[in-house]
Amino acid sequence: MSSPHIVQGFSKLTRLEKLEWLRKQGLLAEERLRHLEGHLHPDPRIQEIYEEISENTVSNYFLPFGLAPNFLINGELMTLPMVIEESSVVAAASHAAKFWALHGGFHAEVTETLKVGQVHFTWTGQEQALLDVSETIADRLKLSVRPITSRMEQRGGGVEKISIRRGSSELPDYYQLLVTFRTADAMGANFINSVLEAMAVEFPSLVEAMRLEGELSVVMSILSNYTPESRVICRAEGDVNLFNGLDRRMSGKEFARRFKLAVDIAGHDPY
Amino acid sequence: MSSPHIVQGFSKLTRLEKLEWLRKQGLLAEERLRHLEGHLHPDPRIQEIYEEISENTVSNYFLPFGLAPNFLINGELMTLPMVIEESSVVAAASHAAKFWALHGGFHAEVTETLKVGQVHFTWTGQEQALLDVSETIADRLKLSVRPITSRMEQRGGGVEKISIRRGSSELPDYYQLLVTFRTADAMGANFINSVLEAMAVEFPSLVEAMRLEGELSVVMSILSNYTPESRVICRAEGDVNLFNGLDRRMSGKEFARRFKLAVDIAGHDPY
Repeated sequence: MSSPHIVQGFSKLTRLEKLEWLRKQGLLAEERLRHLEGHLHPDPRIQEIYEEISENTVSNYFLPFGLAPNFLINGELMTLPMVIEESSVVAAASHAAKFWALHGGFHAEVTETLKVGQVHFTWTGQEQALLDVSETIADRLKLSVRPITSRMEQRGGGVEKISIRRGSSELPDYYQLLVTFRTADAMGANFINSVLEAMAVEFPSLVEAMRLEGELSVVMSILSNYTPESRVICRAEGDVNLFNGLDRRMSGKEFARRFKLAVDIAGHDPY
Repeated sequence: MSSPHIVQGFSKLTRLEKLEWLRKQGLLAEERLRHLEGHLHPDPRIQEIYEEISENTVSNYFLPFGLAPNFLINGELMTLPMVIEESSVVAAASHAAKFWALHGGFHAEVTETLKVGQVHFTWTGQEQALLDVSETIADRLKLSVRPITSRMEQRGGGVEKISIRRGSSELPDYYQLLVTFRTADAMGANFINSVLEAMAVEFPSLVEAMRLEGELSVVMSILSNYTPESRVICRAEGDVNLFNGLDRRMSGKEFARRFKLAVDIAGHDPY
């Protein structure tokens, strides 16, 4: 089946050919075309970098690049770059930073750096049969990915823990390998994905060799962006009297109580 | 208390003065300064618009602006602009769009357009005493904001419903007015906030006039970005045999089953 209106090989066109195609389709007025051209970087080498960051890039999308000064963090006064299109956020951040800079500043500390990856799978056998061998599986999987992890281990990282967990009870036979990683000073996304892919290959044959009753099938393996064990604690400290006068309708103590309540509400309310 | 290193009145400096301050602090090398200059828009009138979108703007932050063609939506073939710096997303979206364009395309339908705002408050009296009068309160609050809502009502929008809800049981005395809005063809953020602010003023005096035993105090009123009752349903339909050959390791039917399982997992797993 085919349609005459569907464009073929669009990604292989040059930037100008893509725009020309749009223009010919009547999808892009001359004025808009000039607008897109106006947002290109004047240095072609830099423009090329932006075009390579994504696909089918025809121009650049601008966001305001701002500065928030007066952030005193761990004793060092910093000016932070901020990119946001919500008006007044940079001003509010700068205002709060200045207030706290005058009262000791912020103290930030990295307390944990674990990252998370998962191999999602289905298992038709007994849950307990699988859990009984989970430690053996974890040990053997760790061993099997050693060729990928050894260099990371030399830098203090590697696979921290592998556990087998039942997934949602609403999805029949669904389980996961939950794997936690330490990636030292690297982001580690490629590292994590490589390890997971290797585990996803090794895991089913490992279980098969154990001759458990049941069938195991890997659905997907993927790193997570939700990393509750990768944490920075940041604190600012001061007497509640610091807040006296910030709001003329209430004392500093009352201001602090309400501020805390607002934060608690934000933490509890789904909206 | 004051510190010589803290900059005062930074926001009032011009763009060039801000950069000059950074440079003098030794915080910005000449090369970086040229880099920031290179990202300004050549047309000063357009640059001015970007500078006004946020505060303390000294340059622009570029994201690649790409095109995803072949989106057949409700019978119309569209080319979508996409701004994302995650490589391969535009290519994947274009690929899927082309596949579905050849098989009937996407069908999208707006099924509900309710937006949500809240007035968070504490109430020290009996919960039931407050709930008993909640309908009266809702009616009177609606009436009190009529000057703000009447124009929106003429356009088919306005305040849809006001309910009083107990907040988290972990926060003593915490309640909220949950207000749902219809904002017609507008985003309505300013409208919603104006209505909530007016309610936040009216609400405590309303309850006071009712002479219930207890104290009511408004903590904050705010619109929500979580709007589960503002919904578009989008569907694409086809026989599972369409998927034959997409993955040579499995049939189209098995591909569809695994795809659905992956989506279900994403919906159930917090990671």
